[in-house]
Amino acid sequence: MKKVVVIGGGTGNFVVLRGLKKYDVDLSAIVSMADSGGSTGILRDELGVLPPGDVRQCLVALSNSSRLMRSLMNYRFENGNLGGHSVGNILLSALEKVTGSFERAVEEAGRILFIKGKVIPVTMNQVHLKMILNNRKLLEGEAEIYLSQEIDQGYKSLYLEPFPKVNPLVTAAIKQADLIVIGPGGLYTSIIPNLLVEGVVEALHNSQAKKLFVVNLMNRFGQTSGFKVKDYLAELVKFLEKDLFDFILVNKTRPPKHLIDVYAEEGELVENDVEEERVIIADLLGPIAKKSSEDRIKRNLIRHDSKKLAKEIMKIVNNL
Amino acid sequence: MKKVVVIGGGTGNFVVLRGLKKYDVDLSAIVSMADSGGSTGILRDELGVLPPGDVRQCLVALSNSSRLMRSLMNYRFENGNLGGHSVGNILLSALEKVTGSFERAVEEAGRILFIKGKVIPVTMNQVHLKMILNNRKLLEGEAEIYLSQEIDQGYKSLYLEPFPKVNPLVTAAIKQADLIVIGPGGLYTSIIPNLLVEGVVEALHNSQAKKLFVVNLMNRFGQTSGFKVKDYLAELVKFLEKDLFDFILVNKTRPPKHLIDVYAEEGELVENDVEEERVIIADLLGPIAKKSSEDRIKRNLIRHDSKKLAKEIMKIVNNL
Repeated sequence: MKKVVVIGGGTGNFVVLRGLKKYDVDLSAIVSMADSGGSTGILRDELGVLPPGDVRQCLVALSNSSRLMRSLMNYRFENGNLGGHSVGNILLSALEKVTGSFERAVEEAGRILFIKGKVIPVTMNQVHLKMILNNRKLLEGEAEIYLSQEIDQGYKSLYLEPFPKVNPLVTAAIKQADLIVIGPGGLYTSIIPNLLVEGVVEALHNSQAKKLFVVNLMNRFGQTSGFKVKDYLAELVKFLEKDLFDFILVNKTRPPKHLIDVYAEEGELVENDVEEERVIIADLLGPIAKKSSEDRIKRNLIRHDSKKLAKEIMKIVNNL
Repeated sequence: MKKVVVIGGGTGNFVVLRGLKKYDVDLSAIVSMADSGGSTGILRDELGVLPPGDVRQCLVALSNSSRLMRSLMNYRFENGNLGGHSVGNILLSALEKVTGSFERAVEEAGRILFIKGKVIPVTMNQVHLKMILNNRKLLEGEAEIYLSQEIDQGYKSLYLEPFPKVNPLVTAAIKQADLIVIGPGGLYTSIIPNLLVEGVVEALHNSQAKKLFVVNLMNRFGQTSGFKVKDYLAELVKFLEKDLFDFILVNKTRPPKHLIDVYAEEGELVENDVEEERVIIADLLGPIAKKSSEDRIKRNLIRHDSKKLAKEIMKIVNNL
């Protein structure tokens, strides 16, 4: 069985994993540990736990338990002191307290949710994502970076503090992989934070696996304004030290105009400017979503289709 | 397979169910819905859910899932906004929100925890326990009644408001039972609240099942001060309308003096003053417990032994 490793965090990861879950592959999800917003941020601050949010999303994506159980994990309380917290985040934090380690917490949660494959936090260190902008402003925490409108003015550095060590399960998974999928997802908040962990880039260099980059559908103003595929690649290469990608998957379908209009204040479509053999252009556009209660997805009305995405990824896997 | 129905709520129920779980009987736990203290009270107030606390304890008692899963359900957060809430309470409340009914929430939680038998809330109505004392003081809510030191001065009435209808699953379970076990547990806060629900006493009258009363080990000052077995029976008969008990199980073993001394401010041993054939006197004393994180048990250093209790109950069952 072919081994596929997916690197990211957040909704982008969720869509890839949910699609690939239906196929006969050995799946590992490597998840960024930089999340500091919303429920996750509060749990980190108040309980001193590692950030559960992105891990929860991956666990739910890979879960073979009932639809009810998956809804339960993503359910967010609306009132009172629990308001804003999702059940899955609460469960992971409690499991970390009960077992004494986040690693065991993720493992046990995977058992409770009957997941297919593995969810592997990129590091077990308690870290915070920081960014220093060209104007010397310091952005502290993933949440602040996610909301910044100034990143496109240039930044001096993006780093994790304290500098974390890679989880050894991550290097093992990367080493044994047949295909490594990076993206889609927030470039500075979900994807690159994985590459900032000591040992990850080296492991990617040493791995014999083919590497696939799934390009985002949309730019976000103030973050990746005006980015084309080449710009995304260039940003990744800055952190990867060299261009490692064997395949680049780009969507070709334009969303309906009214949806693009809805996004007009937030971002624009990513145009392709790379004409190379490794670029695969396909219809990857998801169904037009209504408001959803799933994390962040409500903000992503234009998103990848998990089935179409998985189908294209499996074409690559089957040719390996 | 013999059908055993256990009626109560709180820690007393927990001990009986945990013991009986190991035997080959068809178990149903009928649970009081009057709890309004601590985490349960906050969840009721803030989320408008039915009280999860006693149900959670019964689910955990009957659970065949891992020890870790059971610890997780009883785990209480120590800090922040989640402080004081147990994971099981949070889970039940979220399940009620996601499924839209407490009945389905309990059913699904039972599935998640691989429980043996059934946990049946005595009513699905949102109720509050109230007591009017002889001095006309009104005690509102189970928590206030639990803490009162004046009940032994006499009370005019104990009732649920609004007057609730019995859960039909309760009458069915009582009707089909071979043995019904009432107690041990807080007389006014865990046991009698079940009898205050419309239809429960009638169902008990009509049931062919043998009825067993398990007498508490200790009195609580201000509540059942000076009570002997006959006083417990008389209180129950007040609500049951007649003495329905075929068996009365009384502990004979005195706890070590230093433990009785620890309790001296809180209560005293219950003495037996009923000499009838239906009274079974046995060693039911539990191991000397250290502080435990389980609900209320830390307050019950002198408690029943679940194994000894179940053994005595099974002697009755096997002779039916």
